[in-house]
Amino acid sequence: MTYEEARRQLPVLEHTAYLNAGTNGPLAQATADAVIEATERDLRDGRSGKRYVERTLELRETARNALADVLRVDASHVALVESTTRGCATVLAGFGLTGEDEVITTDQEHFGLTGPLHTTGARVVMADADEDAMLAAVTPRTRLIATSHVLWTTGRRLDVHRLRRESGLPLLVDGAQSAGAIPVELGELDFYTVSAQKWLCAPDPAGALYVRDPELVRIKTPTVFSQESYQPTGEFVPKATSVRFDGGWIGVPALSGIVAALATHPEWRYERSAAMAARCAELLAEHVEVITPAGNSTLVSFRPHGDPEHLVASLHERGVVVREIPKRNIVRASCGWWTNEDDLQRLVAGLGV
Amino acid sequence: MTYEEARRQLPVLEHTAYLNAGTNGPLAQATADAVIEATERDLRDGRSGKRYVERTLELRETARNALADVLRVDASHVALVESTTRGCATVLAGFGLTGEDEVITTDQEHFGLTGPLHTTGARVVMADADEDAMLAAVTPRTRLIATSHVLWTTGRRLDVHRLRRESGLPLLVDGAQSAGAIPVELGELDFYTVSAQKWLCAPDPAGALYVRDPELVRIKTPTVFSQESYQPTGEFVPKATSVRFDGGWIGVPALSGIVAALATHPEWRYERSAAMAARCAELLAEHVEVITPAGNSTLVSFRPHGDPEHLVASLHERGVVVREIPKRNIVRASCGWWTNEDDLQRLVAGLGV
Repeated sequence: MTYEEARRQLPVLEHTAYLNAGTNGPLAQATADAVIEATERDLRDGRSGKRYVERTLELRETARNALADVLRVDASHVALVESTTRGCATVLAGFGLTGEDEVITTDQEHFGLTGPLHTTGARVVMADADEDAMLAAVTPRTRLIATSHVLWTTGRRLDVHRLRRESGLPLLVDGAQSAGAIPVELGELDFYTVSAQKWLCAPDPAGALYVRDPELVRIKTPTVFSQESYQPTGEFVPKATSVRFDGGWIGVPALSGIVAALATHPEWRYERSAAMAARCAELLAEHVEVITPAGNSTLVSFRPHGDPEHLVASLHERGVVVREIPKRNIVRASCGWWTNEDDLQRLVAGLGV
Repeated sequence: MTYEEARRQLPVLEHTAYLNAGTNGPLAQATADAVIEATERDLRDGRSGKRYVERTLELRETARNALADVLRVDASHVALVESTTRGCATVLAGFGLTGEDEVITTDQEHFGLTGPLHTTGARVVMADADEDAMLAAVTPRTRLIATSHVLWTTGRRLDVHRLRRESGLPLLVDGAQSAGAIPVELGELDFYTVSAQKWLCAPDPAGALYVRDPELVRIKTPTVFSQESYQPTGEFVPKATSVRFDGGWIGVPALSGIVAALATHPEWRYERSAAMAARCAELLAEHVEVITPAGNSTLVSFRPHGDPEHLVASLHERGVVVREIPKRNIVRASCGWWTNEDDLQRLVAGLGV
């Protein structure tokens, strides 16, 4: 697939410099077509019957395999959950944390991680978003490190493998800004959760949770997909694999959209995304303070000269879509494999500097 | 809206005797149109920007209000959750049950209730699905009664208000087979959770959770919608209302579909559904043992003469859609306001008796 062919899959790019895959990626025509076709089929044929259920379950496995491919793991370790928030909550609720335990996180995390973390009752130890600072925060009471792979604020990438190796602790990694954006290698990580509607350009919401060893987490919110068999009391034999953490029914339109979306990404996506992020940073650096360290991610965060909310609105009026990070005086541009020089020039031209 | 006009909204009925709203309701043309239009808009315009988010949040409130109308309660008591399973899990996980507590349920519940109930660690006391038996099971250790309003197996309706009144205990009610099927009055009930993809004919999955007093349940899986404000540690001020139990982001296509679906139901829906269920029972009773008590619900469950799975498959071949209840030797027909005499005659003709 050539660059131009790949880009043409995404109609919003015809008129918009769409630089916000960190929130929701651009949808491909094929993705929308799959959703629409499935919706029309559900309308016409109904949503019932043995074959309907069987086909839906097969589609779940196709989606699971496609998400597992992104993470380069076996699908038996992957649960379908609708968001990183749900993925984080699934692990944190079932990890058996108590008020005696400490969990290390950073001051740059999304509420989708810190909210569920807070409710565990464990002591939340906030470190600077820096490997040395996080490792220095480890005490004998630390049971888990819960952090992002790529920080949604600054776009900095943390060396999660170093954190795992040097702390010897399990890690829960929020991969919302990594999966589909940068190559991901899970290695010894225990828990890794991703969004599919962002860099993977799936319908929203969609996501996945990788659990290396399902026995490390209790199932606190079981669904019909969690069990192999069950008693009338609700006592159940969980599925053998991490599929037991599946978050619930997903309709055929959404599943079809996920599968279609994951088939649109070109092989050269990571190289191109990285190159465009580097180019974006280079262009922006002539005018504003870029705070994302070079080579870290596909996010390019910068400090605007004026009010960030105003700048984001003014760019939007010009067909340039970026976002503000609330309370941090940061504007963030997301560069995907689909981003081109013109998008970036439009961003710079819209800075009003 | 005349009966014929109302029925014509649902294209699957043109060729199929669709008697399985207890699993998934028939979709209306307007519902599919809303999903498709929103999908095309997301494709064309992207899924980002302040106005996009504002419109999505407004649509959430429209959906919430429509679901609250079905339950005849104020929308401030209603959380958007994707399923009754999630609704049950939200209440059970946050109710603070311990191994010292007892929860009364019946031997006729769905795993979506009993699975999450089992994981609380409380002692599950199974009673016959009968008000007297359930009330007789109350002990000083009982903290909650968790049961269905209409049993998904037999279609029997439980007098949940009597259970509430005579036990003095909080009730968690699984309303998957009641909301949209029979008039629902919540009264003194504390927790009531419903599916929208069944009798309300919304896209799947969709649902709602009614919580009378949000302070009765701890938020165990917070989402961005749970909080009014939060700290970097994840500590948060919950929203004042039961909106704090919202289950996560819902995409614009699904929200649009929910809103459209809830606008398709005629005023006379409950009378008509009840009449058609009575007629269905009358016709079936000439051939098989109907086990749903008269006047209880819109489900008509019966004992087939032969293998239920075989009967369901054979009916499906004839364009008659019903379902089997696994392990209970029950076949179940769901009668909606859209059901007509011809649907029922086709069912009876397909019994092979």
